[in-house]
Amino acid sequence: MRKRHSPETYQKGILSGDRVLLSQAITLVESSLESDQGLASELVQSILPHSGNSIRIGITGVPGVGKSTFIEAFGKMLLDQGKKVAVLAVDPSSQLTRGSILGDKTRMEGLSTDKRAFVRPSPSGKTLGGVSGATRESMLLCEAAGFDVILVETVGVGQSETAVKNMVDFFLLLMLSGAGDELQGIKKGIMEMADALVIHKADGDNFEQSRKAKANYQNALHLFAESGKSWQTQVLLASSISGFGLEKVWDLILEYEAKMKSNGFWMSNRSVQRLNWLEDQIQFLLGQTFQKNPKVKKMLELERPRVQSGELNPGTLAKKLIHLMFSNS
Amino acid sequence: MRKRHSPETYQKGILSGDRVLLSQAITLVESSLESDQGLASELVQSILPHSGNSIRIGITGVPGVGKSTFIEAFGKMLLDQGKKVAVLAVDPSSQLTRGSILGDKTRMEGLSTDKRAFVRPSPSGKTLGGVSGATRESMLLCEAAGFDVILVETVGVGQSETAVKNMVDFFLLLMLSGAGDELQGIKKGIMEMADALVIHKADGDNFEQSRKAKANYQNALHLFAESGKSWQTQVLLASSISGFGLEKVWDLILEYEAKMKSNGFWMSNRSVQRLNWLEDQIQFLLGQTFQKNPKVKKMLELERPRVQSGELNPGTLAKKLIHLMFSNS
Repeated sequence: MRKRHSPETYQKGILSGDRVLLSQAITLVESSLESDQGLASELVQSILPHSGNSIRIGITGVPGVGKSTFIEAFGKMLLDQGKKVAVLAVDPSSQLTRGSILGDKTRMEGLSTDKRAFVRPSPSGKTLGGVSGATRESMLLCEAAGFDVILVETVGVGQSETAVKNMVDFFLLLMLSGAGDELQGIKKGIMEMADALVIHKADGDNFEQSRKAKANYQNALHLFAESGKSWQTQVLLASSISGFGLEKVWDLILEYEAKMKSNGFWMSNRSVQRLNWLEDQIQFLLGQTFQKNPKVKKMLELERPRVQSGELNPGTLAKKLIHLMFSNS
Repeated sequence: MRKRHSPETYQKGILSGDRVLLSQAITLVESSLESDQGLASELVQSILPHSGNSIRIGITGVPGVGKSTFIEAFGKMLLDQGKKVAVLAVDPSSQLTRGSILGDKTRMEGLSTDKRAFVRPSPSGKTLGGVSGATRESMLLCEAAGFDVILVETVGVGQSETAVKNMVDFFLLLMLSGAGDELQGIKKGIMEMADALVIHKADGDNFEQSRKAKANYQNALHLFAESGKSWQTQVLLASSISGFGLEKVWDLILEYEAKMKSNGFWMSNRSVQRLNWLEDQIQFLLGQTFQKNPKVKKMLELERPRVQSGELNPGTLAKKLIHLMFSNS
């Protein structure tokens, strides 16, 4: 077992902005070790009064859209404005794909070597529930350490978008211009979640096409219903090479913040997110306890193929498994 | 406690097409009584070899789109073609809204009085997990009773669409023509799920507008990615008053069936659905057991407001609750 500090050591370190202790604290909340659970809970609870004072921004988009490049350029602009920026990631598939775990670190060179920034890859070897729980708590730790903009990147393709949407204040979807089929590859549900669409790589030969794409997206968005929080999803252009549009993206986020704080949505949304987080974690821990049960595991392995083939009724097996779990464990 | 038959009585009755025993069997699988669980499981398991031989069609759309009228007209057309049609519904909110529980029965007069049809309202007083579990098992019972087309209607607005999508072979979204804002009120994720869009009430003064809406939808759909099962979502027109387009809807469903059976998607989709159903039910039963635990209930009531206000870390409470549940229960 790795060496752990006392909760007070972590707490003091984090509140004084000690990056090494912040990193170690995040490792603690990411830990799957039974023995770390109590300490991690205590630590997060202790810094809670110092959390919450950041703008939490989720950033998503298909692979190839340039999420890391955007975060690098956008983050650097924020640093130059005097902000302290933390970058977190949610990548439930990282264990298998090993996608951008190391990649991000090296690609975001400017950010990860800058003292005012903090770049942390996604916890690895975890399911979505584990990753998103750890990232949410890491976000609180970063806030307590004084970071005032948290960028949360979705890395995996799949359900991580919903998980990230549920932990941020503002959700940004990066897109590319294309030949009329701009929405190719984007799950329609994702567009619905976005507070802003940013057409990325709007530079050079791409610029004209990006402007057209912007108009197309705006039309498409008008077809859809409003979200009920009096905010119409905006479409913007940006280039991480030229820096074009990055300030407009930030201005829009600030406009959103001001509007949502004045109409009460900002705080009520965070309250709802906390309750959702509670439910998610309960569900995740219940599922984990279920899957760890050796008797359950054995029956599931044995009977799952029979459910798949249609021989055994899923509801019947579910009831049996639950009975088995609670009979004498 | 109500009188129950032996599993053999139910089974024989269902297989011989006895509608009274089919109804009573459905009541049994809908029952929340602890004492009914074993019998219900045994019954569903026993008829399993006789299930699966229907086309399962999910039908959704916003309130006012005319779902019941469509099902009545579409169902009658199928009866006239010699099909046996069962209509089920998933309405997790039925206890509160009492929406169309009775309404449907009376509105679908033609179907509910026809011996070749079977109309069953949504089980009431249940959460989504309970409703969809019961509806899935009712579907199997109806198939064993010889019904070869099962229409599953989403009644509540909300998550029931996903639940229904996950239990059917073909998912149909009813829409209305409108003044350019056709998608108003439709969650974007729903369109993604649909195998066909049917512009309903395409008659009289509405007809021209419906034709335009069809073109608009087709354009919008082309913007989106394909689902990977080599099927492009189709847009059709239909009127339940004139009967216009109903046969085309059925032809399209048959075309889909033929295609998906030959490329293997039909069966593989059902296998995936069975495994999802198993997971859903496990999650539902775990959640139910959790919520019924008196100690958990007490702590949750006490601490939930502190999570909501941001005083207490959601992850910390979740861990405490799970410990409490499994410590000595």
